[in-house]
Amino acid sequence: MQDASVTELPFDEVFTLPVRQLVEANAPLTLVASPNSPSGNRAMNDALAELAEGLDGLLAVDEAYVDFATDSALDLVGQHDNVVIVRTLSKSHGLAGLRLGFAIGSAELIAALSKVKDSYNVDAIASRVGAAAIRDTAHTRSVVDRVRTSRARLATGLESIGFRVWPSDANFLLTRPPDGAAGMIYRQLKTAGILVRYFDTPELSDKLRITVGTDAQNDRLLEALGVRQEP
Amino acid sequence: MQDASVTELPFDEVFTLPVRQLVEANAPLTLVASPNSPSGNRAMNDALAELAEGLDGLLAVDEAYVDFATDSALDLVGQHDNVVIVRTLSKSHGLAGLRLGFAIGSAELIAALSKVKDSYNVDAIASRVGAAAIRDTAHTRSVVDRVRTSRARLATGLESIGFRVWPSDANFLLTRPPDGAAGMIYRQLKTAGILVRYFDTPELSDKLRITVGTDAQNDRLLEALGVRQEP
Repeated sequence: MQDASVTELPFDEVFTLPVRQLVEANAPLTLVASPNSPSGNRAMNDALAELAEGLDGLLAVDEAYVDFATDSALDLVGQHDNVVIVRTLSKSHGLAGLRLGFAIGSAELIAALSKVKDSYNVDAIASRVGAAAIRDTAHTRSVVDRVRTSRARLATGLESIGFRVWPSDANFLLTRPPDGAAGMIYRQLKTAGILVRYFDTPELSDKLRITVGTDAQNDRLLEALGVRQEP
Repeated sequence: MQDASVTELPFDEVFTLPVRQLVEANAPLTLVASPNSPSGNRAMNDALAELAEGLDGLLAVDEAYVDFATDSALDLVGQHDNVVIVRTLSKSHGLAGLRLGFAIGSAELIAALSKVKDSYNVDAIASRVGAAAIRDTAHTRSVVDRVRTSRARLATGLESIGFRVWPSDANFLLTRPPDGAAGMIYRQLKTAGILVRYFDTPELSDKLRITVGTDAQNDRLLEALGVRQEP
């Protein structure tokens, strides 16, 4: 909408945030997804702090998946006026249909955002459902605990048949099947009614992003991949 | 957002749509509120049809208040490909908190709008509540009937103390108090806890826009204005 030009800076092969290059680019708005999709890893807070220091503009950290991680960038908001964290209720809160997210930043920064936002951009029902969901930390905790437990179990199952599994701070796993036959496995699973994400790009075409489902769903996936299930 | 230039064309003193001037302006997008606020009157369908014919661009008719009127521009949609009607659930459906509206136009026009709209601009709850509200025509009819009856009664009361009352197709009345002392009456009513709309512009500063309330609210207004109530 603003006709802004976009500069994309790639991760290295272990998905490290390219802090130096981002500081050099010094964009008016720098966007970092952390945990990132499809890699599943978080940017370290030291790296984000260094980035916030080095930038003249705004650093927006998209923490859509952060509840599945062990740490967040929340502390940076108090320490850096140019950091804004955006989150969503679509993931750990299970409310994707609500289309609701929120931002965390310094009072000054939020006041500036309020100035340009639409007057009534969230309806009365969504704002109350959203507030109730955010307050219901017990429910969120139980969802997150279940996903983390299933994630570990799924990773073990996939590793048992030779998949490489990257460490994940999200509700999905980035994996590399044996021989990198990701495209073929993606199509086979699809035929079996199991959908995983396949990205046909040079960096990702040998990998699959697998969302952590229920234990029953995960078992079905592992079975389709040939893992022998315990009786 | 589009850096478009805006041309405003005034009504005449009886709030007639300036069709000729609007056709001459021939804007890419012509916006007509009908029923209009604060005048309360509708544009005649003949005038809107003439306007749609004369324009190269789009004619958008904002029918936010149309359920309180006796006719709508709905037929024009089938007859003119460049007509789009926009409506809201905030008025006759009583769902202002839902922030939900909709557009009616030719399949081609709606397809073009869908192409540029945000993917998930209405949440799952709002879309279901909205659909239920639109289907519940009996409730809407009863709200509209009540407002129309109260509107007539309120108009009679105001006329009895010398207010001029314009014919209204909306849920409010445009009125002119005796001597045009609108600003003074607005402030007196505000002190009494009654809010009406006062517009401090050359055309409107002698008038008040009064929303039709419940009969009890309307009686309180009339009483504050000195109308003798029947016991």
